[in-house]
Amino acid sequence: MSGNSIGTLFSVSSFGESHGPAIGCVIDGCPPGLALTEADIQTELDRRKPGTSRHVTQRREPDTVEILSGVFEGVTTGTPIALLIRNQDQRSKDYSDIADTFRPGHADYGYWQKYGIRDYRGGGRSSARETAVRVAAGAVARKWLRERHGIVIRAFMSQLGPIEIPFRAWDDIDAEGNAFFAPNTDMLPELETYMDALRKSGDSIGARIDVVATGVPVGWGEPVYDRLDADIAYAMMSINAVKGVEIGAGFHSVVQHGTEHSDELSPEGFLSNEAGGVLGGISTGQDILASIAIKPTSSIRLDRRSINKAGEAVHMHTEGRHDPCVGIRATPIVEAMLAIVLMDHALRHRAQNADVVCPTPKIAGLAPNGSQRVPSPKA
Amino acid sequence: MSGNSIGTLFSVSSFGESHGPAIGCVIDGCPPGLALTEADIQTELDRRKPGTSRHVTQRREPDTVEILSGVFEGVTTGTPIALLIRNQDQRSKDYSDIADTFRPGHADYGYWQKYGIRDYRGGGRSSARETAVRVAAGAVARKWLRERHGIVIRAFMSQLGPIEIPFRAWDDIDAEGNAFFAPNTDMLPELETYMDALRKSGDSIGARIDVVATGVPVGWGEPVYDRLDADIAYAMMSINAVKGVEIGAGFHSVVQHGTEHSDELSPEGFLSNEAGGVLGGISTGQDILASIAIKPTSSIRLDRRSINKAGEAVHMHTEGRHDPCVGIRATPIVEAMLAIVLMDHALRHRAQNADVVCPTPKIAGLAPNGSQRVPSPKA
Amino acid sequence: MSGNSIGTLFSVSSFGESHGPAIGCVIDGCPPGLALTEADIQTELDRRKPGTSRHVTQRREPDTVEILSGVFEGVTTGTPIALLIRNQDQRSKDYSDIADTFRPGHADYGYWQKYGIRDYRGGGRSSARETAVRVAAGAVARKWLRERHGIVIRAFMSQLGPIEIPFRAWDDIDAEGNAFFAPNTDMLPELETYMDALRKSGDSIGARIDVVATGVPVGWGEPVYDRLDADIAYAMMSINAVKGVEIGAGFHSVVQHGTEHSDELSPEGFLSNEAGGVLGGISTGQDILASIAIKPTSSIRLDRRSINKAGEAVHMHTEGRHDPCVGIRATPIVEAMLAIVLMDHALRHRAQNADVVCPTPKIAGLAPNGSQRVPSPKA
Amino acid sequence: MSGNSIGTLFSVSSFGESHGPAIGCVIDGCPPGLALTEADIQTELDRRKPGTSRHVTQRREPDTVEILSGVFEGVTTGTPIALLIRNQDQRSKDYSDIADTFRPGHADYGYWQKYGIRDYRGGGRSSARETAVRVAAGAVARKWLRERHGIVIRAFMSQLGPIEIPFRAWDDIDAEGNAFFAPNTDMLPELETYMDALRKSGDSIGARIDVVATGVPVGWGEPVYDRLDADIAYAMMSINAVKGVEIGAGFHSVVQHGTEHSDELSPEGFLSNEAGGVLGGISTGQDILASIAIKPTSSIRLDRRSINKAGEAVHMHTEGRHDPCVGIRATPIVEAMLAIVLMDHALRHRAQNADVVCPTPKIAGLAPNGSQRVPSPKA
Repeated sequence: MSGNSIGTLFSVSSFGESHGPAIGCVIDGCPPGLALTEADIQTELDRRKPGTSRHVTQRREPDTVEILSGVFEGVTTGTPIALLIRNQDQRSKDYSDIADTFRPGHADYGYWQKYGIRDYRGGGRSSARETAVRVAAGAVARKWLRERHGIVIRAFMSQLGPIEIPFRAWDDIDAEGNAFFAPNTDMLPELETYMDALRKSGDSIGARIDVVATGVPVGWGEPVYDRLDADIAYAMMSINAVKGVEIGAGFHSVVQHGTEHSDELSPEGFLSNEAGGVLGGISTGQDILASIAIKPTSSIRLDRRSINKAGEAVHMHTEGRHDPCVGIRATPIVEAMLAIVLMDHALRHRAQNADVVCPTPKIAGLAPNGSQRVPSPKA
Repeated sequence: MSGNSIGTLFSVSSFGESHGPAIGCVIDGCPPGLALTEADIQTELDRRKPGTSRHVTQRREPDTVEILSGVFEGVTTGTPIALLIRNQDQRSKDYSDIADTFRPGHADYGYWQKYGIRDYRGGGRSSARETAVRVAAGAVARKWLRERHGIVIRAFMSQLGPIEIPFRAWDDIDAEGNAFFAPNTDMLPELETYMDALRKSGDSIGARIDVVATGVPVGWGEPVYDRLDADIAYAMMSINAVKGVEIGAGFHSVVQHGTEHSDELSPEGFLSNEAGGVLGGISTGQDILASIAIKPTSSIRLDRRSINKAGEAVHMHTEGRHDPCVGIRATPIVEAMLAIVLMDHALRHRAQNADVVCPTPKIAGLAPNGSQRVPSPKA
Repeated sequence: MSGNSIGTLFSVSSFGESHGPAIGCVIDGCPPGLALTEADIQTELDRRKPGTSRHVTQRREPDTVEILSGVFEGVTTGTPIALLIRNQDQRSKDYSDIADTFRPGHADYGYWQKYGIRDYRGGGRSSARETAVRVAAGAVARKWLRERHGIVIRAFMSQLGPIEIPFRAWDDIDAEGNAFFAPNTDMLPELETYMDALRKSGDSIGARIDVVATGVPVGWGEPVYDRLDADIAYAMMSINAVKGVEIGAGFHSVVQHGTEHSDELSPEGFLSNEAGGVLGGISTGQDILASIAIKPTSSIRLDRRSINKAGEAVHMHTEGRHDPCVGIRATPIVEAMLAIVLMDHALRHRAQNADVVCPTPKIAGLAPNGSQRVPSPKA
Repeated sequence: MSGNSIGTLFSVSSFGESHGPAIGCVIDGCPPGLALTEADIQTELDRRKPGTSRHVTQRREPDTVEILSGVFEGVTTGTPIALLIRNQDQRSKDYSDIADTFRPGHADYGYWQKYGIRDYRGGGRSSARETAVRVAAGAVARKWLRERHGIVIRAFMSQLGPIEIPFRAWDDIDAEGNAFFAPNTDMLPELETYMDALRKSGDSIGARIDVVATGVPVGWGEPVYDRLDADIAYAMMSINAVKGVEIGAGFHSVVQHGTEHSDELSPEGFLSNEAGGVLGGISTGQDILASIAIKPTSSIRLDRRSINKAGEAVHMHTEGRHDPCVGIRATPIVEAMLAIVLMDHALRHRAQNADVVCPTPKIAGLAPNGSQRVPSPKA
């Protein structure tokens, strides 16, 4: 499988550069019979699109998606679904002066050494612009997962730089004026003040995003390499700027005892969810809980040292239109990647195990009196 | 690709259960001409094998490997290398009383629901015994990487439960009596005391392992999904009991500013390595730095609540021979998984880019005055 | 890997329906540095396009290709190359009356049973229109193979129904007025007369296409399943209407003795090429020779029995614009598929074996006095 | 996916050389719950094994299979099934004198150039000995296909060199003393006389094998590359010595008109089966019919010209124990390969289309008054 494709059975092959004619993908393996329109995808794209608040890049991209194939009379046919998003606001001139230098914290130097050539306009293929494709493809997966299995996937910003954002309510994320996907509208003034100061300083900051999938049946995932959590880790780490992935208790499990970490079972369900919904690589029927670290944007207005193609030392800074915290727009991307992974494993699971009739009564995910970091989102 | 295989071009297909006749794998895609004997692999297996100190499981497995194919007159031929390790000390009776119950923190319930059947003897396929296969396959990759590219891969325990282990020297890890892969022999008394108390208590504890690969050339990794760091995250999270993966600054990047995190370049090399040797999914020529969280062992002697196949509440505890901290034996596994990923990307890179002649002089990984969390290991 | 993708390292993911908005593909894994323009691809598409003579379908499709990504300043960058061909002359109304019936010899019934839905307009995904995508992707592979390895790939029609076409000269294929890709212009009057009568009769006919690749180095192909010839067989049989594939002597080898079939070697090269350039799945350095059988078009004007969705017996015939011999336009497709397979194996070979230094002097493919069915084509 | 693996979801990773310690494979993706013992596999292996009549190689290999994993208490668990066959009668000395020469018609020269090294003992990896692995893996697939879907797969020799063998009855194949898998015991004297003369002459001969699968449901196969017939062509051409593959009418379709070739439908079923059970790459519910050409054995006792590693002309002949017609033992291999492909597509189909409810009544494969080359085999 080539490096720009993700998924074994629900497979997404992505293409496109930041300042080329278009970005898009081919989705193969989607089951037939799913009602799908461009509006279904556009809704998700609009959540990620740039230029929606002063805290994100001011690039204006309508990100209008066109379905080129695989849908007939409003329903998926089972053949490849091609999605096309034309680039609009390209302003390549912004980048002409960096054609010969390597931006710190970016893939520039690596691409140059790997390929001997690079599309320097906005990072070309390495630009976060490609994440629009993930959101578009993820929209298809989310819709199928919701309609077929009742699965709901929601993410939120749990930390913006030094500011931890205590979870209050899922509804808060969708509240008007919440540009941060923060699950706590009380925090908005503090977040806005922080971002305004940051933007003025010319620097950037990291963030943490948490994601939850509820309704995932027990039994998805493959031993021993393509574990559900391994594929989630892969998918999350493949997002631009991600430097860490946790499942369930994550790094906190380093200091936990077995009596704290390992979730007990009862006839009413699990009594806790430290595992994050995956044991031995296989879903347990509990909520899938993951958390990721997003590094600060590398394109900043402050002076940075680097080298040019001649190997000479240079100073540089970035004047383009960039997000001071790429984590802010990452939430829909994280949801999309989890959707893609879950859908792939849904299909893989039934390929092998469609005939399994397991006599034991399934237990509920979390017992009524069980404990979990954040509550399950509702449909 | 099936779930028990890892790698696109250097591909490892693993098999075997904890208490079945044997475990092993088929390695496909290894370049021809690599000198390889069973001793090369045995050396690595011996580092992981159980029963070497009082702090690990007392199961006695010689883990003797047999090369069944792919090597002729002491050299790899380019055809599949099959490795076989017969199980010896199986003691299945230890497990007969748990055949009808689901151990908390284990894959038992998931396997049962997924497959409608499970090999309950020692966890069957979900047992950490499978990690011996990883170490064996990784030994082949390590040898090729070292001989072909001068790459050295070393891991160490950086934290045992609450005890952080400050890095002192790579040599400390190999010091006699160091059962912990701790890079600081001064810490051994504290670690031993902690483990002795833990073992008496019947409980278990988590750990953190750090891994470093030095000598990795710039340019390995694929945009945009099969990034080098995404594949590392996948490989690490696929190890039993791993709950978190970090690359470079990892979760610390959440609170970093761009001016702190993004590594500046100079003609002498990078001035820091917060990225952990990967930018935009492609190696930078710096050391690859990763860190993983390992949860506490789920098999403990203390009383735990669970259910049986009839759906009834039960109490259970484990009397088998288990590691109170599975992290202790994880170090060679982590090294092996990184080796497998790097070798796969070495081959993928040259498949596409063997003809690239990049005119720019390559910079050294880390500049002489640059900063990095731990020093590079030596061959 | 999903069913609409071909290739492990040079991977083509195809999409599109006959009467949808567009067809196209994403090519991943192409080496960087290949000069590539839309004209390079258009040239090949024009050889396949409909409406160029009275012997083929009169559908008018300009088949104009647009490169959406992966090429910067006229050179491939190593990132995915997306190709887009908008459909123009769709005339869906031609098909509305067959929406509820299953055309004999077509995929209609199978699609309906497999997916529970089908795009009935012109066969939707199962239409031979998709082969334009193959030709477009193949154009990229051909160019790289020619420039990097000097490989030349040529196909021709060797039989039209009952009329065998004895090979005379490669140049004949390109002669003006040769609508048949026949390697013998003397045969054109007979072929035209035959086709004119056939067209009047309303029936259709099969054909045989031969293909030759010269310049393929020794050593490409993988044991034991992904043999070069196995992948060629797969690629050829994946072309619409193909019912048989031969390598070298093909079915004639059934009646050959070992002394006739197995090609002897001499210091000057092989003394014959019955093998067709592949032994044990690995290229020998001789010309790759393959031959395929193409069935007669199923869409004919004559009355045929079938059933409709209600399971009732119906009579039907086809009035659409169809090729009475689909084999006529198949030649560029066959060349394209062979190019895709060869390029994939070129990359796979060097991934594993880039370091091999084989001391033996390579022999020429065919010795000067050796025998081969058709001469090698020239660049 | 590496070159020694076949299958996307039912995946077989093969290993082993003719004269190494063992051959075998890892089967991944087999559904759980299939009753499976070594005897189930041994039965199939015994049909292929050498030394059973004077017309095949006299090498004595018991081909005893051991199941190393994936089966617990007599039932598959859904985890990888590893199969091991130890080599017994290796007689490597037979080959020592050819270590420096390249046998005509063999992979020797290609392996040497590809890998720079070769295991010359009996062809090493390129030996037909590897086909025992295919038969073993195929036995698992056949059992599942038969028990889950009622599919029966049978092959037979339809031509031995110049002698066509008219089909008489499936039972004839299993008749005592029928060493040829000939579906017509009347032909046995002629076949034996031919083979006795051939063996005395020191030469070898080709053969044709036909294979039929009955009971395959409509809808298996993927558009547009991984068509069912494309994957069959791949699998068949991957068998040692195969030079041609046909589906249904095969090369005869070159001279057929559309009115002859395209199978009409009726409410009672298809009226003929020229397609061979596959249209547009998807099974039609009719019998799958394929036919393959097997070249004459290259290892013969007669004098042949070749070269050695020094590039010098040499004369050579083979004194080892070889089959004068490798086609004779090919029948179980052909059945096994078809089983592997069908099982893979069974799983792929239900992965995507498990939810499809198609309202149309399925028609029977072949209508009672329909015509097909050979009758359907019975279970």
